[in-house]
Amino acid sequence: MKFSAQQIAEVLKGKVDGDPEAEVSTLSKIEEGRPGSISFLANKAYTQYIYETEASIVVVNEDFIPEKAVKPTMIRVKNAYSAFTMLLEMYQQAKAVQPKVSDKASVATTAQIGKNVFIGDFVAIGENTVIGDNCRIYANTSIGNNCNIGSESTFFAGVKIYDESVIGNRCTFHAGVVVGSDGFGFAPQEDKSYKKIPQIGNVVVEDDVEIGANTTIDCATMGSTLIKKGVKLDNLIQIAHNVEIGENTVVAAQTGISGSTKIGKNCIIAGQVGIIGHLKIPDNTTITAQSGVTKSFKNPGMIIGGSPAFNHSDFQKSSVHFKRLNELVNRINELERKLKNQNITE
Amino acid sequence: MKFSAQQIAEVLKGKVDGDPEAEVSTLSKIEEGRPGSISFLANKAYTQYIYETEASIVVVNEDFIPEKAVKPTMIRVKNAYSAFTMLLEMYQQAKAVQPKVSDKASVATTAQIGKNVFIGDFVAIGENTVIGDNCRIYANTSIGNNCNIGSESTFFAGVKIYDESVIGNRCTFHAGVVVGSDGFGFAPQEDKSYKKIPQIGNVVVEDDVEIGANTTIDCATMGSTLIKKGVKLDNLIQIAHNVEIGENTVVAAQTGISGSTKIGKNCIIAGQVGIIGHLKIPDNTTITAQSGVTKSFKNPGMIIGGSPAFNHSDFQKSSVHFKRLNELVNRINELERKLKNQNITE
Amino acid sequence: MKFSAQQIAEVLKGKVDGDPEAEVSTLSKIEEGRPGSISFLANKAYTQYIYETEASIVVVNEDFIPEKAVKPTMIRVKNAYSAFTMLLEMYQQAKAVQPKVSDKASVATTAQIGKNVFIGDFVAIGENTVIGDNCRIYANTSIGNNCNIGSESTFFAGVKIYDESVIGNRCTFHAGVVVGSDGFGFAPQEDKSYKKIPQIGNVVVEDDVEIGANTTIDCATMGSTLIKKGVKLDNLIQIAHNVEIGENTVVAAQTGISGSTKIGKNCIIAGQVGIIGHLKIPDNTTITAQSGVTKSFKNPGMIIGGSPAFNHSDFQKSSVHFKRLNELVNRINELERKLKNQNITE
Repeated sequence: MKFSAQQIAEVLKGKVDGDPEAEVSTLSKIEEGRPGSISFLANKAYTQYIYETEASIVVVNEDFIPEKAVKPTMIRVKNAYSAFTMLLEMYQQAKAVQPKVSDKASVATTAQIGKNVFIGDFVAIGENTVIGDNCRIYANTSIGNNCNIGSESTFFAGVKIYDESVIGNRCTFHAGVVVGSDGFGFAPQEDKSYKKIPQIGNVVVEDDVEIGANTTIDCATMGSTLIKKGVKLDNLIQIAHNVEIGENTVVAAQTGISGSTKIGKNCIIAGQVGIIGHLKIPDNTTITAQSGVTKSFKNPGMIIGGSPAFNHSDFQKSSVHFKRLNELVNRINELERKLKNQNITE
Repeated sequence: MKFSAQQIAEVLKGKVDGDPEAEVSTLSKIEEGRPGSISFLANKAYTQYIYETEASIVVVNEDFIPEKAVKPTMIRVKNAYSAFTMLLEMYQQAKAVQPKVSDKASVATTAQIGKNVFIGDFVAIGENTVIGDNCRIYANTSIGNNCNIGSESTFFAGVKIYDESVIGNRCTFHAGVVVGSDGFGFAPQEDKSYKKIPQIGNVVVEDDVEIGANTTIDCATMGSTLIKKGVKLDNLIQIAHNVEIGENTVVAAQTGISGSTKIGKNCIIAGQVGIIGHLKIPDNTTITAQSGVTKSFKNPGMIIGGSPAFNHSDFQKSSVHFKRLNELVNRINELERKLKNQNITE
Repeated sequence: MKFSAQQIAEVLKGKVDGDPEAEVSTLSKIEEGRPGSISFLANKAYTQYIYETEASIVVVNEDFIPEKAVKPTMIRVKNAYSAFTMLLEMYQQAKAVQPKVSDKASVATTAQIGKNVFIGDFVAIGENTVIGDNCRIYANTSIGNNCNIGSESTFFAGVKIYDESVIGNRCTFHAGVVVGSDGFGFAPQEDKSYKKIPQIGNVVVEDDVEIGANTTIDCATMGSTLIKKGVKLDNLIQIAHNVEIGENTVVAAQTGISGSTKIGKNCIIAGQVGIIGHLKIPDNTTITAQSGVTKSFKNPGMIIGGSPAFNHSDFQKSSVHFKRLNELVNRINELERKLKNQNITE
């Protein structure tokens, strides 16, 4: 689909400054703009790019005054950033799949499928599972028995949901996500082998949760592993059995949270963090990348770092000294030498 | 399925103390007990919860004497913990899928499928592959050619097994596990490109191995990558080509073991550990979380930590000092100052 | 398939020294050689094994003079290493699947499939997607709409490719790879929830790229996440949105690269490395295992290590001192004691 500057200006309630027939089919960043794309300029720090960009159209604030010739057609609007975000959302909606249940899917006769649902090829949906309205379930996804999926949720290709899982509304699970695998629980036996502890709980994911590709969430031993409303998990994260993650907490890629740990709300957990089991992390905590959290913290709002993790600003100071540890040792050697010489000379 | 206190007491050979008609359909921890669930009290530290729990039934030791009113029906048995474990196992067995080969699976004509096997929708099983009795293979799993799978093994949804893999009896592979992908072997060329070294070996997994969701195990360059009897691997673990893991070793989530490293038996390897290639880790070694193991260790039974890893109790001491490195530097500054002043005053 | 020493010698243009009827069906390392396998001896350090190996045939350099009796049949050739590599490649080619499109696959009517392609069971290929000649796409793989896949590329089982992805020639993606999942981009709102930033870009993978099992590559917010020619990625790696990786860079397992970071060409990045967003890593950089890279580096060819990462040889020195930090603190204590005593005695 191609759109002209004139058509887009009408949608954005803006004014065309340049060729109204300039056409675009995609969106781009101004510094990477290519012919046939529309870009935007909102941040003054990027102004230089409008004189260089190859984008065909650029959305600008209405008061923008160029200092040189501008090649692309400009569309002048009140707020270039908001206008461009609107275009982004329209673009994404235009790409959304149309509702349809593939005749190559396998839906159990006892499953209940809502209205306007897309179910792709080779999707397997188990007994008594309920899928809400407007869900989109892509190819090769498998949903077990007795699951309950809210409305407007999207599962991309190859998601695997175990039996008894409960998923909220407007959730997005990316390709390869696993929800409900057994917790890692084994009782050591006298002969040094391990006996499996049955994991009969489930996973509950509340509304508006996004889960990144190939992330895994284990079911609870008993009860529920709980991912609360608005949580955002990146790719390749491990969430162990009986973990709870509070509302609107975000977790970056490759972080692992061990069994029964409770994370508060509005936390920011960076990438490759490890958190051991049975801890409590208070609300508004920030944990920096690659930290290893080995104890609970009490005060909300801390920034912690390091492995084992402590106050982040102290960690930064220690890290600076760690770099120069060799120099420090030389200084101690020198002190010892001087003191020894002193004693000899005395 | 619902069961009454009376029915459960008969199974457990216990005595009902309270309403014999109280009904439950699931199990719970006493501190999280909800109506319709059965819980247990074995550890005295949890006694307070029996006065608060909303569980409908609680299994208790026969000599338990409540100090206040107990709302749930109690079932008195000799050993509350064992009795509850028995219920857990019965619960899990009751949920097991019934044997059936889906007509939406694709089983090669030369494959041999044992008795009482469950094969789910969209499962692909290759040429000459043998599947033992009582296996359960869930939807969207793919098993290559010439594989040999023992009996009573379970592959959850979306497991991928490459050609020539050998899997033992009573193994459990969780959703998204990959077994047999190529080892990461490339020979640098003069033009700075890399040429792939063919990876023609396989993976051998012995009996009673459990592998967590989205864990990957590469095939050997030649010969076999070997996971021995009773090994338990958590989620998102990477096992490289030609690795060997000894009997009853457990490995927690997101750990990576590099090519040709041999891990002994009865080891405990925590989460997010990295072990470089071509090492030997002796029996009974414990490696703490996020360690980076860069050399072989000789003595069995060590606990090692840190990155690079060394004796764990030394690592703990060093970590304590690391936290206070800034203070330490201040002390050195002060020493230098004093010594300088001394010299001046002398 | 079995081959005799005589047959193999003819292929390798070598001479049989021993039983020309000795038969083999696979290849092995000389130190692990088992009956029915062919091995090789090129490196003198391994000479001892030729007197012990159970391999049935060993390829040796033509000038090899045994010092003891050799049990296996030898095939003497000009260059034993090259000859064996040739056998490895022939072995692997002999195992390659034959072209065929499964009648259990789902190929959109608007997709274009090249010549001599293998498409396995339960593969889903979307609208307008182009698959080049000689590609091999294994079971349960899902390829979205408007993708372009070059020729001679292989996708193992359960690969998931999102819409609009562009993949080059001779690429190999292992089982469970995800290409094109949304970048992790959310704008914080006043009520502490997050609003998703639409991710409308794609992923471009150039020629000769290998990607390991369960690795994930996010699409760009706008524009393309770019994996250049000859890059090799190991298993369970995370590549975030708008990342660029230069030609012939290799990355080991479980490494994560955050959004918009640009990695140069010919870099070597070890396992479990984390690199934060918006950095530039120059050509020929080596990053050691478990490093945490928090800033850009300017000079090409550096070796960096540690978390936060700095010059690797400095990191090694600091690590040695870190191990002995307790001893160092004792020395400072002692210095302080001595100086204090001095002052008292003075």
